[in-house]
Amino acid sequence: MARTPVGVLISGGGSNLQALIDAAADPAYPAEIVLVISNRADAYGLERAAKAGIATRVIDHKGFAERASFDAELDAALRGAGCGIVCLAGFMRVFTPGFVEGWSGRMLNIHPSLLPSFKGLHVQRQALEAGVKIAGCTVHLVTPDLDDGPIIEQAAVPVLDDDDEATLSARILEQEHRIYPRALAALAAGRIRIEGRRARSA
Amino acid sequence: MARTPVGVLISGGGSNLQALIDAAADPAYPAEIVLVISNRADAYGLERAAKAGIATRVIDHKGFAERASFDAELDAALRGAGCGIVCLAGFMRVFTPGFVEGWSGRMLNIHPSLLPSFKGLHVQRQALEAGVKIAGCTVHLVTPDLDDGPIIEQAAVPVLDDDDEATLSARILEQEHRIYPRALAALAAGRIRIEGRRARSA
Repeated sequence: MARTPVGVLISGGGSNLQALIDAAADPAYPAEIVLVISNRADAYGLERAAKAGIATRVIDHKGFAERASFDAELDAALRGAGCGIVCLAGFMRVFTPGFVEGWSGRMLNIHPSLLPSFKGLHVQRQALEAGVKIAGCTVHLVTPDLDDGPIIEQAAVPVLDDDDEATLSARILEQEHRIYPRALAALAAGRIRIEGRRARSA
Repeated sequence: MARTPVGVLISGGGSNLQALIDAAADPAYPAEIVLVISNRADAYGLERAAKAGIATRVIDHKGFAERASFDAELDAALRGAGCGIVCLAGFMRVFTPGFVEGWSGRMLNIHPSLLPSFKGLHVQRQALEAGVKIAGCTVHLVTPDLDDGPIIEQAAVPVLDDDDEATLSARILEQEHRIYPRALAALAAGRIRIEGRRARSA
């Protein structure tokens, strides 16, 4: 079986990157992580990648006058490494539409809410402030609209009466680590069929 | 223990009404259903109520020139029966703000989505069209804004690849029947404390 080469984009600790690395350690997993790119040189995820023997690149957005040229550099690095899929794992940059369209149907993001509820930042806090009793996380294909692409996987967790942002975020993160590898496997194995906004297993 | 008298408003079959009736059949349940009001004379829920020995009223909205006078009649019937809590169970009328404010903190609704996602009508279809993988239902206090009051209970269900509106609605409905009696019990027993938009157990 040919494993699909995957690039992972990070800005920080990369615990979701670690979940993907761990899943891909199984030779039967249909994707292989071949490159980890961070826009920050001090991202701990770079160490996680290096420990796993995965190539890393730092592409600092501050070195680019325009968003488009930063995105072009990302794109060149990903294509140069032969990536067929891109996974965002806490990558804190907004892309140009051109970059997103170039990876249409082949770029995944994980978001710590049950989309379409709670888009944008600090969504665990948004969920607490809205008083929901069920929170969760979503893996979706990336489209030019923020947090809005076809949903591949979701998981739900309870919100407890004494939760704060930290306790709720930790409970959601456990589920992120479970569903992100599942979603990547499905996409890499060609098992995802998109109909309208609905992604189904082929 | 004094049980809180409850009025239930319906427009149709009233399977959530049945779930409340069944729960309240337990003498230890902190609420007692004392009145069921329908705006339609042919609502099957009226039979469910009659079978359980619960008083019923038909108040047909078509008999009222103005929404406010219809709501005033509802209000008088509920207060006349000594209701301390009102439960909406598929009641297909929008209230005047005055009626809602008169039952502030004491009127519950059940909605077949994981609010704040998917407000309004046909929300199971909305969920399918949005491609979510987790759907659910919400019991919330009613405020003048549609489907927007503090959330008391929620339950999640999976959306399956071959779901249509009917199969998803049925799966959600099972959970509605589970959480509506729980939410009413909590409210009737005075166990709900509202802080901002967040409802917690007292």
